[in-house]
Amino acid sequence: MKLWEKGISVDKQIEKFTVGNDRELDMFLAKYDLIASAAHAKMLGKIGILAAEEVEDIQTELEHMKTDLENGNFLIEADFEDIHSKIEYELTQKLGDTGKKIHTARSRNDQVLVAQQLYFKENLQEISAKTKSLIEILLGLAEKYQDKLLPGYTHLQVAMPSSFGLWFSAYAELLIDDLYLLDAGLKVVDQNPLGSAAGYGSSFPIDREFTTKELGFSEMKYNVVAAQMSRGKCERTVTSNIASLSNTLARFAMDICLYMSQNFDFITFPDELTTGSSIMPHKKNPDVFELIRGKCNKLQAIANEMILITNNLPSGYHRDFQLIKENSIYAVESIKEILDIFSHSIQQIQVKDVDLNDEKYKYLFTVDSINDLVMQGKSFREAYQEIGGQVQNNTYKPTADKKHTHLGSKDHLALDKIRDKLMNVTR
Amino acid sequence: MKLWEKGISVDKQIEKFTVGNDRELDMFLAKYDLIASAAHAKMLGKIGILAAEEVEDIQTELEHMKTDLENGNFLIEADFEDIHSKIEYELTQKLGDTGKKIHTARSRNDQVLVAQQLYFKENLQEISAKTKSLIEILLGLAEKYQDKLLPGYTHLQVAMPSSFGLWFSAYAELLIDDLYLLDAGLKVVDQNPLGSAAGYGSSFPIDREFTTKELGFSEMKYNVVAAQMSRGKCERTVTSNIASLSNTLARFAMDICLYMSQNFDFITFPDELTTGSSIMPHKKNPDVFELIRGKCNKLQAIANEMILITNNLPSGYHRDFQLIKENSIYAVESIKEILDIFSHSIQQIQVKDVDLNDEKYKYLFTVDSINDLVMQGKSFREAYQEIGGQVQNNTYKPTADKKHTHLGSKDHLALDKIRDKLMNVTR
Amino acid sequence: MKLWEKGISVDKQIEKFTVGNDRELDMFLAKYDLIASAAHAKMLGKIGILAAEEVEDIQTELEHMKTDLENGNFLIEADFEDIHSKIEYELTQKLGDTGKKIHTARSRNDQVLVAQQLYFKENLQEISAKTKSLIEILLGLAEKYQDKLLPGYTHLQVAMPSSFGLWFSAYAELLIDDLYLLDAGLKVVDQNPLGSAAGYGSSFPIDREFTTKELGFSEMKYNVVAAQMSRGKCERTVTSNIASLSNTLARFAMDICLYMSQNFDFITFPDELTTGSSIMPHKKNPDVFELIRGKCNKLQAIANEMILITNNLPSGYHRDFQLIKENSIYAVESIKEILDIFSHSIQQIQVKDVDLNDEKYKYLFTVDSINDLVMQGKSFREAYQEIGGQVQNNTYKPTADKKHTHLGSKDHLALDKIRDKLMNVTR
Amino acid sequence: MKLWEKGISVDKQIEKFTVGNDRELDMFLAKYDLIASAAHAKMLGKIGILAAEEVEDIQTELEHMKTDLENGNFLIEADFEDIHSKIEYELTQKLGDTGKKIHTARSRNDQVLVAQQLYFKENLQEISAKTKSLIEILLGLAEKYQDKLLPGYTHLQVAMPSSFGLWFSAYAELLIDDLYLLDAGLKVVDQNPLGSAAGYGSSFPIDREFTTKELGFSEMKYNVVAAQMSRGKCERTVTSNIASLSNTLARFAMDICLYMSQNFDFITFPDELTTGSSIMPHKKNPDVFELIRGKCNKLQAIANEMILITNNLPSGYHRDFQLIKENSIYAVESIKEILDIFSHSIQQIQVKDVDLNDEKYKYLFTVDSINDLVMQGKSFREAYQEIGGQVQNNTYKPTADKKHTHLGSKDHLALDKIRDKLMNVTR
Repeated sequence: MKLWEKGISVDKQIEKFTVGNDRELDMFLAKYDLIASAAHAKMLGKIGILAAEEVEDIQTELEHMKTDLENGNFLIEADFEDIHSKIEYELTQKLGDTGKKIHTARSRNDQVLVAQQLYFKENLQEISAKTKSLIEILLGLAEKYQDKLLPGYTHLQVAMPSSFGLWFSAYAELLIDDLYLLDAGLKVVDQNPLGSAAGYGSSFPIDREFTTKELGFSEMKYNVVAAQMSRGKCERTVTSNIASLSNTLARFAMDICLYMSQNFDFITFPDELTTGSSIMPHKKNPDVFELIRGKCNKLQAIANEMILITNNLPSGYHRDFQLIKENSIYAVESIKEILDIFSHSIQQIQVKDVDLNDEKYKYLFTVDSINDLVMQGKSFREAYQEIGGQVQNNTYKPTADKKHTHLGSKDHLALDKIRDKLMNVTR
Repeated sequence: MKLWEKGISVDKQIEKFTVGNDRELDMFLAKYDLIASAAHAKMLGKIGILAAEEVEDIQTELEHMKTDLENGNFLIEADFEDIHSKIEYELTQKLGDTGKKIHTARSRNDQVLVAQQLYFKENLQEISAKTKSLIEILLGLAEKYQDKLLPGYTHLQVAMPSSFGLWFSAYAELLIDDLYLLDAGLKVVDQNPLGSAAGYGSSFPIDREFTTKELGFSEMKYNVVAAQMSRGKCERTVTSNIASLSNTLARFAMDICLYMSQNFDFITFPDELTTGSSIMPHKKNPDVFELIRGKCNKLQAIANEMILITNNLPSGYHRDFQLIKENSIYAVESIKEILDIFSHSIQQIQVKDVDLNDEKYKYLFTVDSINDLVMQGKSFREAYQEIGGQVQNNTYKPTADKKHTHLGSKDHLALDKIRDKLMNVTR
Repeated sequence: MKLWEKGISVDKQIEKFTVGNDRELDMFLAKYDLIASAAHAKMLGKIGILAAEEVEDIQTELEHMKTDLENGNFLIEADFEDIHSKIEYELTQKLGDTGKKIHTARSRNDQVLVAQQLYFKENLQEISAKTKSLIEILLGLAEKYQDKLLPGYTHLQVAMPSSFGLWFSAYAELLIDDLYLLDAGLKVVDQNPLGSAAGYGSSFPIDREFTTKELGFSEMKYNVVAAQMSRGKCERTVTSNIASLSNTLARFAMDICLYMSQNFDFITFPDELTTGSSIMPHKKNPDVFELIRGKCNKLQAIANEMILITNNLPSGYHRDFQLIKENSIYAVESIKEILDIFSHSIQQIQVKDVDLNDEKYKYLFTVDSINDLVMQGKSFREAYQEIGGQVQNNTYKPTADKKHTHLGSKDHLALDKIRDKLMNVTR
Repeated sequence: MKLWEKGISVDKQIEKFTVGNDRELDMFLAKYDLIASAAHAKMLGKIGILAAEEVEDIQTELEHMKTDLENGNFLIEADFEDIHSKIEYELTQKLGDTGKKIHTARSRNDQVLVAQQLYFKENLQEISAKTKSLIEILLGLAEKYQDKLLPGYTHLQVAMPSSFGLWFSAYAELLIDDLYLLDAGLKVVDQNPLGSAAGYGSSFPIDREFTTKELGFSEMKYNVVAAQMSRGKCERTVTSNIASLSNTLARFAMDICLYMSQNFDFITFPDELTTGSSIMPHKKNPDVFELIRGKCNKLQAIANEMILITNNLPSGYHRDFQLIKENSIYAVESIKEILDIFSHSIQQIQVKDVDLNDEKYKYLFTVDSINDLVMQGKSFREAYQEIGGQVQNNTYKPTADKKHTHLGSKDHLALDKIRDKLMNVTR
């Protein structure tokens, strides 16, 4: 059943090709289509296109479908092209002529748009909440392990002393940056497109301010062509914001995998969080973090896909836009799972004692040694040359670890300041 | 001359390979390195590492270099590795031992970081301003041409009536979304990284709040590891935000190129804005907009490059980061040029009269015809079937263009509402 | 059930996260794993690790599973991690101790590798065959419509006369380039990795030349580390080759969508190949070709995903590699479907008569006019200036269409030469 | 000076924007444009458009320019739009009317195409040669260090014994795969496009077989539309092939950077190949290999840029194509430099003695231990459980390193077989 049924039989092979996996994907949007259809009906009542009882009947039926959906009793059967055909069909089955009026003053274009944007809006808020909760966990770990030292590396070479406190809270603070971007993404999707119809509006006197308010959108996308072009822009924005968050998590996961290697041996995880090998019985592999890394890298590829599909297309809807639904929904669902798994797993990290007096770490303290000479009056560049000479002659003796006092340093993590930042992210 | 000179000769071929085009790129950062060095010196004075006269001497010399730079008299000669070596060398030449103290409590890492972030900050503000100015131009064009009709397309097929007013203001409203993202990018870069040194801070009692204030940053990146990891994150964020803006401009340019084709013939430009062919004397090609489109597409590729270079690298500086300097600076400089050219060119657009009564456009009005039937009491789906039948029997007669009354429609552009939105973009 | 079962319970949430959709994907590889397992068993027999009856028993059971698979009776139940666990489990159920010997001298790593490479090999051959068949169809269309003229465009501006013959055979000839790349991809995957075990080989005296021959591989990947690193390289190569083919098809689809627009009106398709709109009853949209374009663009994004996931990982297996299985298989399956649909649909194209004497096409012939002057003795550059002057003064009169005689021109398509090229693609 | 000069002044700002850095890039193509122009002139002589003396005069002048170019005396001055305008100008200056005839029967489109394809062809051959030479070096190192053991890793966890011999020759064998792709790329570019003019051929009776032979192309791109569309296809193919090679080199560089870390300490390089830090005097950073890795990652981003710029553009030339010249040339020049530096540097590698008896490596031998039990009659899966039990009870005792005997294993590197493969790469 198609909304555009004209009595001409469509080639079967073609139909399979064009419908694709839309029915499965639409299950993610069903709830929002039902909500938006109810608001649309109410608005049609307000402007006199539907009678009050018609509005009520439609709302009741939509409510039933919502309950079915929540209970797992709502299906998009194989003879429907998509969720939109299914809903209109159900209304018409139950309400006869009243059902045939629901599509007045809208098109499938704005119907998809509004459902997608409601979906993105709710999910961006959820992703932000999950990110905040991970940040809290990391700040907790930073506090707990603030005194445990780690070698710091640059170029993968032993560089200067660092600490577990610095390491955990670094990622916490970086994740706040990702919240800024998620917040901007929210602004992009939180604009009502309903009423744009096929991208050129309607000759009915629809009340778009009413549906904006009814659906809880903070803004309207006024221009109907702009509203239509939000298809693509929303997906690109959301996936690009998720990519930024993924990048932070992927790099963290890389550190974890590296630090679990026997050659670093800084951390480990309980057996329940590791996996084995089909031939090497000793293996305890950090698959969870490898998969987090890999999945996050996969998510970073998606924004590029969104661009490739929509790029260089002139304005106005093209069917190509259907194809970006899949991976934009995948990105949303995947990052939520990743955040859950990350939060769940990182709390079980086991931090080891790292012996910074080990021979391989002895040059960690050369900068502190230089600074001592500077405090005794040498210029920095001369002190650098002097300690450098000792390193080359093999006469350098490391000094004991010195406390760092400035804001954000290993001995002054400023976790309260980072918490303040987190509080100030607006939404 | 290198900051890390140790008296060992480095392979010449290797040196060329490692230095690359850094000297040229650093000219974009020179101003900001001079400003940050001055703030750093002032802070060293405040905490007693430099004497008051030393601070003054350094500031005077830095000021001289800044003047030279503004006058085009500042060069990074071939024997310097980068701008940072050059500045320290100059200070040491002029001030002797005092110059050798400037690098106290900092590293080249945070020196680059702070200069880059100041550069990005100033430029994101400039890019936003240029975008706002283009939006104003488009809103002006929308107002001027609000009564000129255009066919609206979906699937590149004639769909429903549109207008030049809708077309121009659609891109105006979409560009506001890009401002939200630029604004989030600004938040990411507007955090002082100075004091993170090589990514692990310093044993000196440096005052990072002082430099934050002195340099006009709204926030500090507290955690020194996070500050170091801003290298990469800033470039990815800035180029990704620029990509979003580029996407909007590229699609606009695509419309323009298509609408200039003889087969559409909706618009043209004065001869001065078009170019010719080496063999076809009649050609007036829209090269400016093709190049805008192409350059914007190129800019959309850059964020992916930033990810590819930095991806899967464990925390801590790696030399690879040097390589993302080039295209992140290119993206900034290029988008500014594109915005200028776009604003300059679009104002010269010549809008043609499009005859919507032409045979090929006759089905533009079928939805209006359906809506008429609905207003007469038919349900939408029945009215759709009736008009559809007329189309198939070839008996359909287009109705005259009907005024659309709702917000954001062709006859109610709501330009004031879009202007309000623009005013509310925070920074 | 896991091949590495150690009696430690793995976190359920974690298990779901790590297994992902592997079971579904493995159904594409099942056939090849069964084939490779049989060859491995036979080799183990040859070197005396398995007795002759053991080899026979294993082969019989594998053969049963293959039959079940072909009949749709083979399932990977939810308690198996993947196809590999499932097969070993079945063998052990049926054959007891003999089944426990099948994993001798191999690892899941090379088991996956060999199955994937056999899958890629067979499918690249199939993709090439389908491409060749599309090329034949296009050459047939070129021949059929060789006399039908079209305007040729540059910059989307009317440029010089072209023809349907040129248009169809252009894509035919370009697809031959894609065959060269598919052929190179075949060389990359057609190298036996079996015997590399976990990437470091085996202490058993396995006979890799035997399995190479048995499995029909043209070459061996000798070095076991290289064999392991083929994971990633094969996927990148295959998806990148498919992307090249997709690019050609996407551009062709773009032409088709554009040429179907009422503003070009060069071609159409029967109703069965077009789709409608939920509100505009007149629409006949080229969704099939829009989806071909979109899906081909999606395929062009996949090679980048493969790079992003595997990039910067040091040598040796990482679990991240599991994640590139999904989209490399998707790319293979999707391009086959696209090629089928393209071949099926393009044959139904309806070519229209395009009137090149229409006013908007009048400058199509300026180059021919210049050439006439050159034949009369003018230098090219002077003739260009003269005709250019006529265009500017509006005195230009188009000449009649002139026959082009050179190889590859509209009146001399050289289809036989293109067919020769096709014959010469080696595999 | 422009080939399409029509006496209308073009906006200066626009001119700067449209010309871009074409003059610099064209210096890479100048040689090939001169060669192709000579062949074109000779062909025009053959078909009677030019007189014999005219051909001779033109060839002499082109030869002069080529000599100037080789001596560094050839410039494209700021008043020329590109190399093509410059050459025609020079010929006209020197030869008067004869010069004005050179552009007969060609367009700037096929002039650029043929020059680019000649450039790509020569360079792909050079890149292949440099790759082969690197392979030889690696095989030499594999031979030299075949007895030096290394721990092998999976998931960055200690897995099974490996060796320097395996490591070096793994990359050698993988690079052969890249040669297959380069070879396919060569087939794509080695097809003469000259004669396609603006993409629609010419009404002159040009002899394209003559120029094909004259220019040494193995094939012709017959169809003129296909020839024009090679613009884009060639760049995408070449950069994608270079990306494959870059991926192999980047992963090798990653290994090198990791193995130089104090935590692995498997290799080092002489001081001349490392660089230092501005504040840490002990640093010997592997910048060369970090930059190789970063540059190779950058090269992997370029194919995506080529797609993004050309994607979804209908057939026929668009000015956007000018923009892919820059990075396709960059990719070619950069990979040549990288291959030189890699070959130069890797020969200076210093291989360390790695003590596999170190406690952290003790589980390297568990698979060998299992295999011993299998040889004593246990089934593989039972032997796996037994050794696994010892590992869990902490009773496992490593066996001594066992010789591996099969083809491609650490003790049987099969370097001769790999050399045979290299010999068989066709071009």
